Amino acid sequence: MSEPFDAVDVIVAKRDGGRLSDAQVDWVVDAYTRGVVAEEQMAALAMAILLNGMDRAEIARWTAAMIASGERMDFSGLSRPTSDKHSTGGVGDKITLPLAPLVAVFGVAVPQLSGRGLGHTGGTLDKLESIPGWRAALSNDEMMRQLEDVGAVICAAGSGLAPADRKLYALRDVTGTVEAIPLIASSIMSKKIAEGTGSLVLDVKVGSGAFMKDADRAGELARTMVALGTDAGVRTVALLTDMSTPLGLTAGNALEVRESVEVLAGGGPADVVELTVALAREMLDAAGRTDADPAAALADGRAMDVWRRMIAAQGGDPDAELPVAREREQVVAEADGVLTTLDAYAVGVAAWRLGAGRARKEDPVQAGAGVELHARPGDRVRAGQPLLTLHTDTPERFGRAREALAGAIEVARDGGAATPRRIVLDRVAAD
Amino acid sequence: MSEPFDAVDVIVAKRDGGRLSDAQVDWVVDAYTRGVVAEEQMAALAMAILLNGMDRAEIARWTAAMIASGERMDFSGLSRPTSDKHSTGGVGDKITLPLAPLVAVFGVAVPQLSGRGLGHTGGTLDKLESIPGWRAALSNDEMMRQLEDVGAVICAAGSGLAPADRKLYALRDVTGTVEAIPLIASSIMSKKIAEGTGSLVLDVKVGSGAFMKDADRAGELARTMVALGTDAGVRTVALLTDMSTPLGLTAGNALEVRESVEVLAGGGPADVVELTVALAREMLDAAGRTDADPAAALADGRAMDVWRRMIAAQGGDPDAELPVAREREQVVAEADGVLTTLDAYAVGVAAWRLGAGRARKEDPVQAGAGVELHARPGDRVRAGQPLLTLHTDTPERFGRAREALAGAIEVARDGGAATPRRIVLDRVAAD
Repeated sequence: MSEPFDAVDVIVAKRDGGRLSDAQVDWVVDAYTRGVVAEEQMAALAMAILLNGMDRAEIARWTAAMIASGERMDFSGLSRPTSDKHSTGGVGDKITLPLAPLVAVFGVAVPQLSGRGLGHTGGTLDKLESIPGWRAALSNDEMMRQLEDVGAVICAAGSGLAPADRKLYALRDVTGTVEAIPLIASSIMSKKIAEGTGSLVLDVKVGSGAFMKDADRAGELARTMVALGTDAGVRTVALLTDMSTPLGLTAGNALEVRESVEVLAGGGPADVVELTVALAREMLDAAGRTDADPAAALADGRAMDVWRRMIAAQGGDPDAELPVAREREQVVAEADGVLTTLDAYAVGVAAWRLGAGRARKEDPVQAGAGVELHARPGDRVRAGQPLLTLHTDTPERFGRAREALAGAIEVARDGGAATPRRIVLDRVAAD
Repeated sequence: MSEPFDAVDVIVAKRDGGRLSDAQVDWVVDAYTRGVVAEEQMAALAMAILLNGMDRAEIARWTAAMIASGERMDFSGLSRPTSDKHSTGGVGDKITLPLAPLVAVFGVAVPQLSGRGLGHTGGTLDKLESIPGWRAALSNDEMMRQLEDVGAVICAAGSGLAPADRKLYALRDVTGTVEAIPLIASSIMSKKIAEGTGSLVLDVKVGSGAFMKDADRAGELARTMVALGTDAGVRTVALLTDMSTPLGLTAGNALEVRESVEVLAGGGPADVVELTVALAREMLDAAGRTDADPAAALADGRAMDVWRRMIAAQGGDPDAELPVAREREQVVAEADGVLTTLDAYAVGVAAWRLGAGRARKEDPVQAGAGVELHARPGDRVRAGQPLLTLHTDTPERFGRAREALAGAIEVARDGGAATPRRIVLDRVAAD
């Protein structure tokens, strides 16, 4: 069958600053998925998109074409409304773990299709897999049943959703084109729209540990994604949240599960609780549960009850001991003063090097590895006081983890006022 | 062996508007030739280079890296100085055929490594192959001997020169990145510098039938290439020449050989003679033969003598009948008036569709196919008067050739002044 377009013409149109027609977008995404548009052609197009941009209608069409490359899920048969959350990824970002059961407490179904970690940010599935027995892979039927019975599911995204995105993401990863906002937005939103959630809350991270280092670009990404979701009929809201320093006091798989369970037990670090409640509030509002009180459901154990049922439904033992790393080392303060900086990116890289993350998709991760924080920016510290504990099964990794932390910790000798951390920086809703 | 750079870092540096270091350029060109940098990575880099540019030193280094990917030739053992010409390609551009023997008349060796045609511009080798017996492939030894004995050789470039360029050109062709001036300039100049010519004259075409449609970009390309040649120790000059209408009265392989022989016999179309003499003048000056009179050598048969020896040395019979196409059709003027436009690109595409050119490298060409012009812009014409003759062995091609010519011929009924054609638009020499 002859093709309606020539790949070079499509590339040249975008290269020269033009917009792609709906028919060109539909064709190029489909032809790439079929292998008719070659990897090198899509790489050139991705670079042209990164440098020349796409308008709102182009991005919407690109997203629709990616959705059309695969199957769509349908939650309309459920007795509950659905709401989902997506985070652009940060260091110590374990929010999905307490959030999904917390929202489910109020009769909202949370179908959280998640991924594994790559690079300095951890993956939700890697974290949950540190729980003995827990399994990430569910059939669509199992997922539906669990959403009906328990109300919350966190599982691996099947390969049927937006296969074009999977192929394109792997290409962008090796061609310096990950950072194109139209492609980031369409990658995230194609999967979320195909998944069929009724409402969606986006947690767009800003800061050194985030994909987006500055607030302007994070805002642009948030607005682009909210527009895409809204245009596709999904009630979508985004929060811009701070990722200059890690979220909570842990970065690492079992370490983060332990901290999440603390939050579900009514305790845990204030920033994790604050963000969990803020995101729950948005998800519940979007699903029409405006009278729900998520903070109360953390305090009184209802969220913990759903958590235990959710873990058990996927074969996990919520009472099992979590893995602990074989070796530990401390990083101590070098002077008296106020801790002014504890850089998120450096902590993320250190946790990764200790074995919590992976450099390539096929690498294994260590359940117990990671970084534990004993102080937060704004805290007064004394020379010799432990600031971090590094955890790993493979002590030869301590050296490279310490290298990653060089320059990441700053203590101001002259004190200075501790400025309280603002977690939620901005909120973006539909126009 | 571990690699000193990561391809993504090099791509990102150029993507973000930076300049590549010498070490990055050397590595990326070499690693691409070795297959360590993948096609899709080079495609993304080529698009970033196209959109963000390269400075003079970067282009020079890129060119040097392409030269270093292969062998270099050495003409220093010849008893004569060497001078070469490169044209960026146009419709009816047969200038190499009379030019090489003409310059050789004055004791300057012309090592003209040429290619085959692709698309709407013909290839010098395709043209010469319409001469019975003539062969394009020579060994380096045969080439040297012919340069010493005859003074001129037109033959196929061996695969040993700048293999990185061959690989990169094939990639650019399918990824919409042909038009990057740094990559065009380094592609042309890497082969010419590796070939080892002492001086070089560039014929940079401007207009509808040329690769560069506008004079600004053609000028930029000319300046870039002159700088590259000069920096590499090759005396380099460029002429910007008009390609809005075909050169001479023929476009097609045997048709152009016939016209070239007319020029060598002291006749032929004025524009072909003018450009041949202008380029010969530049080549002879660059080779130190400032007192030579090329126009005289066309008129008195000395250039024809060298032509005959050059063709015979490569197995061709200079007295053989040239192939003639089996079928002919005429295109006539639709009204009385002055022919104001005869578009070069349209004539090139028509000749290509008639069988003179090829769409893919492996396609054959017809020796006799092409377009013959009976009038030139500025000429007064009468309704029904033949303007073009279309030649082909395959008459089913006439229809698509006529389609290519739609709108390409304009006759102004109210006459208007005939403006004489300027062939040489500008000259670019080293700063």
